[in-house]
Amino acid sequence: MPRRTDARMSRHRDTPATIGAMPKIVDHEQRRADIISGLLRVVARDGIDAATTRALAKELGVATGSLWHYFSNFDTLVAEATARVIDLVSTRIAERTTNVRGMAKFDAIMTELLPLDDVTRNEAVIIVNLWGRLSTRTVYFEWVGTIETWWEDLRAAMCEAVEDGELVPETPVEELVQVFAAITHGQQVAHAAIPETPPEAHEAIVRTVLAPWRA
Amino acid sequence: MPRRTDARMSRHRDTPATIGAMPKIVDHEQRRADIISGLLRVVARDGIDAATTRALAKELGVATGSLWHYFSNFDTLVAEATARVIDLVSTRIAERTTNVRGMAKFDAIMTELLPLDDVTRNEAVIIVNLWGRLSTRTVYFEWVGTIETWWEDLRAAMCEAVEDGELVPETPVEELVQVFAAITHGQQVAHAAIPETPPEAHEAIVRTVLAPWRA
Repeated sequence: MPRRTDARMSRHRDTPATIGAMPKIVDHEQRRADIISGLLRVVARDGIDAATTRALAKELGVATGSLWHYFSNFDTLVAEATARVIDLVSTRIAERTTNVRGMAKFDAIMTELLPLDDVTRNEAVIIVNLWGRLSTRTVYFEWVGTIETWWEDLRAAMCEAVEDGELVPETPVEELVQVFAAITHGQQVAHAAIPETPPEAHEAIVRTVLAPWRA
Repeated sequence: MPRRTDARMSRHRDTPATIGAMPKIVDHEQRRADIISGLLRVVARDGIDAATTRALAKELGVATGSLWHYFSNFDTLVAEATARVIDLVSTRIAERTTNVRGMAKFDAIMTELLPLDDVTRNEAVIIVNLWGRLSTRTVYFEWVGTIETWWEDLRAAMCEAVEDGELVPETPVEELVQVFAAITHGQQVAHAAIPETPPEAHEAIVRTVLAPWRA
């Protein structure tokens, strides 16, 4: 929940300056967004283990203490940064799947999930850096659920492909959704481990799994 | 390279005590092994971000400075701990694949790679915690190569399965090896994210991919 600041508080050294008549709440949300962006840059460039409070403050050019006016602790910040990445991916999927269905929709979704271009490769590095914390931090369990919408979209696309005769009626849609979820995560790891992996290698893996079911 | 200690040095507070006529080199290697085991316990229990020098020294009941008699820095320690995990998996695969071939060998290999029991689930958490460092530390590239032997074993098993008529001649063995590598990594992530994932869920994903190619 955003913390409201009044004019007197905004002159405190660690509080963002207000501009003209702009509501303070905007400054606060903007500063939170800036901190999240800063964290994502540091993680993508130097790894999550290098993303200390000190490194983040340096990245943003602010005092270390100022960060904790906006986030109660590091885990909250990381959780919100992860939510931001997931949200960006979901928004792109929504944009690209308007007015398409079946295999065209399937391909559009996988294009946003696999590390195929600069944007998705950068996200893969960030996501792989964040996964380790999943196993020990229940605070992240919330956003694991939000990823489910990607697999629901993929399921819907494959069902349409069966309806439209692009995939054979025997296509095990439910089972394949699980396979493509695993492949998405696996290829993000493959990119983090071997950044030279060409886009074609990621695409070939999806094609191999789908080949037996094409009509 | 092990650092040799003489009798006088062994009485230094940070040097392991020698017992009787046992060669000092054994103490040194044993202490290195103990430190690696301690790191793996901390990572599995609390995550890589909690595995600080201080936490590790506490886990082992030693002074923080003593750790760095055995490893030049934290990355070297993490790299050796990772090599140890990979080595344990490779040893188990070698043991379980003696005198088996084809699909029996394939199943034996996948049983050691997927998070199906306490040992492999523990390894999955450790591995997922370590992956983030891959993207920013070239020191780990060395062991990425050693994982390749798992996929070579899997390839050999599938080739035997084709020869023995367990898989159809059209089975795209090379392409499927890449798929199973992705699935292995993906399901380790799935376990780290959702530890309640039942073994059957991991096995079902492998079965789905293989189904179209069974003879």
